Amino acid sequence: MAPKYAPSLRRRLPVLAICLEIAFLLLFIFFVQYDDSYIQDEAQSKKRKTVTAIYADFQDVHVMVFLGFGFLMSFLRRYGFSSIGFNLLVAALGVQWATLVNGFLFEFSDGKIRINMMSLVTANLCAASALISMGAVLGKTNPVQLLLMTLLEVTSFIFNHWLLTRFTKMDCVSSIMHLHVFGAYFGLMVSWALYQPGLRQRHEKEKSSADMGKFSMLGTIFLWMFWPSFNSVLIEGKAEKMNAVYSTYFSLAASAVTAFAFSVLTSKKGKMNMVYIHNASLAGGVAVGAAATVIPSPWIALTIGLTAGLISILGCWFMKPISEVAFAMQDVCGVHYVHGLPGILGVLIRIVIELATASNLQVAWNEAAFYLFALYVTLALSLVLGLLTGFLLKLNIWKPHLDRKCFDDQAFWEFPHQAVTL
Amino acid sequence: MAPKYAPSLRRRLPVLAICLEIAFLLLFIFFVQYDDSYIQDEAQSKKRKTVTAIYADFQDVHVMVFLGFGFLMSFLRRYGFSSIGFNLLVAALGVQWATLVNGFLFEFSDGKIRINMMSLVTANLCAASALISMGAVLGKTNPVQLLLMTLLEVTSFIFNHWLLTRFTKMDCVSSIMHLHVFGAYFGLMVSWALYQPGLRQRHEKEKSSADMGKFSMLGTIFLWMFWPSFNSVLIEGKAEKMNAVYSTYFSLAASAVTAFAFSVLTSKKGKMNMVYIHNASLAGGVAVGAAATVIPSPWIALTIGLTAGLISILGCWFMKPISEVAFAMQDVCGVHYVHGLPGILGVLIRIVIELATASNLQVAWNEAAFYLFALYVTLALSLVLGLLTGFLLKLNIWKPHLDRKCFDDQAFWEFPHQAVTL
Amino acid sequence: MAPKYAPSLRRRLPVLAICLEIAFLLLFIFFVQYDDSYIQDEAQSKKRKTVTAIYADFQDVHVMVFLGFGFLMSFLRRYGFSSIGFNLLVAALGVQWATLVNGFLFEFSDGKIRINMMSLVTANLCAASALISMGAVLGKTNPVQLLLMTLLEVTSFIFNHWLLTRFTKMDCVSSIMHLHVFGAYFGLMVSWALYQPGLRQRHEKEKSSADMGKFSMLGTIFLWMFWPSFNSVLIEGKAEKMNAVYSTYFSLAASAVTAFAFSVLTSKKGKMNMVYIHNASLAGGVAVGAAATVIPSPWIALTIGLTAGLISILGCWFMKPISEVAFAMQDVCGVHYVHGLPGILGVLIRIVIELATASNLQVAWNEAAFYLFALYVTLALSLVLGLLTGFLLKLNIWKPHLDRKCFDDQAFWEFPHQAVTL
Repeated sequence: MAPKYAPSLRRRLPVLAICLEIAFLLLFIFFVQYDDSYIQDEAQSKKRKTVTAIYADFQDVHVMVFLGFGFLMSFLRRYGFSSIGFNLLVAALGVQWATLVNGFLFEFSDGKIRINMMSLVTANLCAASALISMGAVLGKTNPVQLLLMTLLEVTSFIFNHWLLTRFTKMDCVSSIMHLHVFGAYFGLMVSWALYQPGLRQRHEKEKSSADMGKFSMLGTIFLWMFWPSFNSVLIEGKAEKMNAVYSTYFSLAASAVTAFAFSVLTSKKGKMNMVYIHNASLAGGVAVGAAATVIPSPWIALTIGLTAGLISILGCWFMKPISEVAFAMQDVCGVHYVHGLPGILGVLIRIVIELATASNLQVAWNEAAFYLFALYVTLALSLVLGLLTGFLLKLNIWKPHLDRKCFDDQAFWEFPHQAVTL
Repeated sequence: MAPKYAPSLRRRLPVLAICLEIAFLLLFIFFVQYDDSYIQDEAQSKKRKTVTAIYADFQDVHVMVFLGFGFLMSFLRRYGFSSIGFNLLVAALGVQWATLVNGFLFEFSDGKIRINMMSLVTANLCAASALISMGAVLGKTNPVQLLLMTLLEVTSFIFNHWLLTRFTKMDCVSSIMHLHVFGAYFGLMVSWALYQPGLRQRHEKEKSSADMGKFSMLGTIFLWMFWPSFNSVLIEGKAEKMNAVYSTYFSLAASAVTAFAFSVLTSKKGKMNMVYIHNASLAGGVAVGAAATVIPSPWIALTIGLTAGLISILGCWFMKPISEVAFAMQDVCGVHYVHGLPGILGVLIRIVIELATASNLQVAWNEAAFYLFALYVTLALSLVLGLLTGFLLKLNIWKPHLDRKCFDDQAFWEFPHQAVTL
Repeated sequence: MAPKYAPSLRRRLPVLAICLEIAFLLLFIFFVQYDDSYIQDEAQSKKRKTVTAIYADFQDVHVMVFLGFGFLMSFLRRYGFSSIGFNLLVAALGVQWATLVNGFLFEFSDGKIRINMMSLVTANLCAASALISMGAVLGKTNPVQLLLMTLLEVTSFIFNHWLLTRFTKMDCVSSIMHLHVFGAYFGLMVSWALYQPGLRQRHEKEKSSADMGKFSMLGTIFLWMFWPSFNSVLIEGKAEKMNAVYSTYFSLAASAVTAFAFSVLTSKKGKMNMVYIHNASLAGGVAVGAAATVIPSPWIALTIGLTAGLISILGCWFMKPISEVAFAMQDVCGVHYVHGLPGILGVLIRIVIELATASNLQVAWNEAAFYLFALYVTLALSLVLGLLTGFLLKLNIWKPHLDRKCFDDQAFWEFPHQAVTL
């Protein structure tokens, strides 16, 4: 049935991608310009420095978004080209759209959006949120569906970010760190809407291979290594920034060790599971994100890493099989256990720290309620908008996948040579 | 016939490499020293800072040169060791030679060349130019030929750079950004001179494999991610530097999306071609290089990316088969469509921008003529010197490849184990 | 016999790892806190800057430790998951322990260890020392043994570092650069103690494959590229720092070229050996480490690179087979020829440079004796403590490997799918 998809993509993907690029171009022509406050106002030397000093951190985040996520998702044995390639496509489109949406909602003054280093970093973080959603539906969506999902996810996430910063007066960094929770639950809802009963018995191709495992390890390690930059890049105060770096470093170290220990413990034969270890090692970085600036001592970072690793492994081991049956929810990359639960844990930890270190308990309880409310808004919006997106993507005009064509590069890629060892 | 090459390499490669290293060593002894202006002149704190602040950018370029190009070229199914290994050899030799030639032509005062961070960056960029040429002859040259080509290419390119900056008073950054055009046409001429009719029908080994495609994707993504550093590293003014970063970022995002769209569109079955996507994604970075500092608005960067991606795909799809037959030109990595045409496009865009933003049109037309003249000199020199180099490399004393030994690691590498799945 | 190991690991590894994490956590609770001198003392702006400015260099070192070493060691055809995975486990545990030991020995004041950027960098360097030791016993130890070895190696190395800085008044950077020598000889002694006669005839699985060779090349190139950061990250003076960067850059370029030349020369068929080239390319970075700040001219860096590459290749080619028979010493990754001999060469070069550039020869001879003494202490301690560690690891309670289970991922990892092409 391959020829059936090929013409479909041939007509739909180029048309959609080119139309989007031209629409972006038109919006950029009328509304976007470079931030030339450098040139006009030489006196603002302080702000100038802040804006350019983050270039090295930006590159770390850039590596995470374009390389880390793509290779992390490349563990499926016949879906390596697609994982890495579609990650590039989705992220490249996502950053352009995020620049526009962010600009319109946050930096729109006298009819112009002004681009600076911060815009690029924020755009990358918003694209990361879409990549998390992509992890949940990996292999079960065609690129046309992925592009639509990216547009809707980025719009929804930035809308949520705008709601939080506008109406709850949450600071920008804390608000944007909801990207893990938002991306995960949005993706899970899309996955639920796209549920295909035929995939209930585990798909033959939905498995890893020894080769792909190493590419996936590469992506995981890049994410793991640069996570301190991810959690600190938007923070302006130097002391808070370093606090976030140190905390993320120790949390990740603890979650990596925990990952190995509990992966062996949950295995019948006492062996290690590469996918569990990937997920749990990264969970430490996610969980520490929401509270990174306020963690008062390194032992708290270690505790967060330990807990996040534990939750991630137990979730994969215990909840994943149940939720697949009970909720008919397929979560290919386990984003619920890398980004979803650890992200919620992060917000709860933030609340506990705020309560524990507060001088005025009344104010602290208000703060706590406020963080809980923000989490509630994020969860609600991600679930509802994810569900709507999922039903939209189910429409037949996007030519969704048939069961047996899932998880296969050959549906989308020309192979110059049919290597035996795919 | 393998034994025939083995002794040849055994005698020639070590002798050539060691002689070159000793020659470099002698030249370094007599002429090169570290720039100790730091120590002697503490007052130059401004310049000191500029020179050391680019270390992080230098590392990005370092990754592109030593890892990005090597892995990008590793797509051939039986030539992975050679692509990655020879890239390291050529680049390591190239940076030493480039340091010397650059030093003699540009920084030779009171009998000494003074090394600083800028020397290292420039040496890396010159080595990149040789790696581009290597892409055109990949798999059809032995390492002895590659070393000779590197020496001659680096010398020629720096000579061209010296001509441009000396006699046309072009600024250093604009001049060095001709490295794409120079490297590509130099390599194409070498490839033309080394043309082997036996390779006209596409060589069985001149194909990719699913495994190597992922390594090649890794190299592509590293090049893609760090291209903003490549285009901005030499720029001194902070506003111009950031302008180059932003422009490269948006151009690359647009060319990546364009790459996917047009790759599907040009495919008979509506599938994606990994090699086209690599080429077209990177074309956006090349095309924006020449004009990166003067691009006034982000939409122009998007337009450049779109156009470059389009030209690259159409070139690969339409021109490549024709030029192989018509001009007997084999371009293994498609450097003409990644570096050649997008590089020329970049210069033309620069001219258009200069004309469009000029306050005095007379001066602007003079500028335009001057850029066209520089492009003309670069093209002429690269074609002529590339051709001469090609004929020199054809001499039998270098024991050139026989047709059926091309594109094969086994001609050069010991395999500890003959894995079945090469 | 696989089931025999599985329960062993199941009980031992999680218990050990979790106990260690909890012990670390308790020590962190009572003794470790963030360095908040930023906040309390705004006047120390100078020191603040130094401490945060190294973040980009730290990330380079981070990449070397967590990705470079892991992938470098991944050349064995059936041991890729373990090489990369255990590297992460060992390094993540090592940095936590190194933070504690370093803190107690060097920064313990008023009952608290204060963490800053320097602590993180130093912890990474100490973990690197343990990873070097791991290279010598790769494939012949289970993760429980690796964790114990890491604890003991890190403790021993930091104890040695403390001795040198405390009693010989050696500066911190020079002392810590003994990590190569210490790690290599410690690992060799452990390997000697764990010697298994059954592995004397080269193990079938102790071989590389074409695929793994490319992952190993990836690790090598990351180490090679970021070595200038490794050698300069701890140096405070700007001029000395740049001196170290330049010297490492040129030494590495020379050793890479030398590696190719001598690899061909020592091969019977005139072919290249990937493993020799890895080792010799990196040897230039090791050898330049001890003297990086005092190298007066770039030609000396080139000479160091040439010599180190030569020693590494000749060692691998000539000494390795002999030492395996004569000393019953198995050195899987060849750490003796990457870190051991080049590290000793580095100290000797430092002595020669100190003597050659001295104004007062009497003082210089004293300096020389002092460096020799430090090297002697390092060698003696690494050999003795390595041997003790080796015998400890041989105890049956750790369930050491049987011969035929060595070098095999299947002893430790669940494979979701038994791919044919392992």
